[in-house]
Amino acid sequence: MDRENLSDLTISRLPAYLYYLFNARKSGLTHSSATAMASVLGIHMTQIRRDLALTGVTGKPKIGHPIDETIESIQKFLGWDRKRDAFLVGAGNLGSALTGYADLYTTGITIVSLFDDNPMKIGSMVNGVPVFDITELSFAARRLNPEIGIITTPREAAQSTCDSLVACGIRAIWNFTPAILEAGPEIIIENVSIASSLAVLTRKILVQGNGIPFRQPREGAEEQ
Amino acid sequence: MDRENLSDLTISRLPAYLYYLFNARKSGLTHSSATAMASVLGIHMTQIRRDLALTGVTGKPKIGHPIDETIESIQKFLGWDRKRDAFLVGAGNLGSALTGYADLYTTGITIVSLFDDNPMKIGSMVNGVPVFDITELSFAARRLNPEIGIITTPREAAQSTCDSLVACGIRAIWNFTPAILEAGPEIIIENVSIASSLAVLTRKILVQGNGIPFRQPREGAEEQ
Repeated sequence: MDRENLSDLTISRLPAYLYYLFNARKSGLTHSSATAMASVLGIHMTQIRRDLALTGVTGKPKIGHPIDETIESIQKFLGWDRKRDAFLVGAGNLGSALTGYADLYTTGITIVSLFDDNPMKIGSMVNGVPVFDITELSFAARRLNPEIGIITTPREAAQSTCDSLVACGIRAIWNFTPAILEAGPEIIIENVSIASSLAVLTRKILVQGNGIPFRQPREGAEEQ
Repeated sequence: MDRENLSDLTISRLPAYLYYLFNARKSGLTHSSATAMASVLGIHMTQIRRDLALTGVTGKPKIGHPIDETIESIQKFLGWDRKRDAFLVGAGNLGSALTGYADLYTTGITIVSLFDDNPMKIGSMVNGVPVFDITELSFAARRLNPEIGIITTPREAAQSTCDSLVACGIRAIWNFTPAILEAGPEIIIENVSIASSLAVLTRKILVQGNGIPFRQPREGAEEQ
């Protein structure tokens, strides 16, 4: 149970609670019931209660969870109550999109510098963030000491970029490429896999198109 | 076991196998061993064998999995052997990034039209894809009959965009916003949650920074 509670899956549900609670607070509420959350988020209320309890808050019967305290508790649990600087390598469309990602500020992360090898991009600003020559990465890292390295390069450049970021002392990599990155066990690598997400989407289309309900597949349905 | 095999988690591992096999084929191999895949992908070989068996191929002892057949089998299982058209709403940085996403072609999906409400963007081309006025969505959908709707709007516009896409007859939504979308049970919604991914990343940084190995958390570590 403890093990299950602390899985990536549990942690990945917490931002949805947080955004829900931000909205609830904006509309003037002080407490939030797991039942109401369950109906909006499509997550079972037992699960919601268990997830929130993990961060350290428990609701009261008929009153619910105190919103301010729960927000603070989730933020603390996720480490979103701290400021962290990030370097981003690969100032293409996706990299630019991330510098403009409005919800990034709720996570405490600031993209302080972009890096690219394209002379057309170097020296420019993207959403107020300067683009530096990739050869300046190590110098900039010594000066700014970023905690997180974000990789939005083409797939072929991802591993060498990861190696460079790790060599600069960065210990947490956020990888947006489909490359499977190799790094020492002390390095945290988190992948945003667009291909994996598409795999789930198209598989569901396929299964649903065959008239098989995709949530409870029939035995043997896979062999056809 | 069948149930576990068919989880989204299993499906999400398949693209990594596919890209590995593409590379192996390029380097002239005809067969691939689960042991070699395991060491590169960091996934246990028993898991790899089970996942691949699910798509319909089994390896032979000492020879491994036949590469051509396995690639075809994964593609068929994921529905990546079929062509599908997609509409994308929200022609900002992220939307533009997706039209230029080089690995999209391996999935069979083509983004055929972009839609936006910004007059500066309407009428332009992004990576060869035309940007139309969002008010033309329904007309364009009747003409082009897309299977997939991609949402890369700001969070506030996500639900109304989803409603419009569903009203056009689109049954599969690929949502890149942090909004929790509501739609009928017949609609497939797949979310790429950047916030969830960041939650996992920052939590790991936090736990590792506290000297607690993040993969096997200590009991009570959460209460501090």
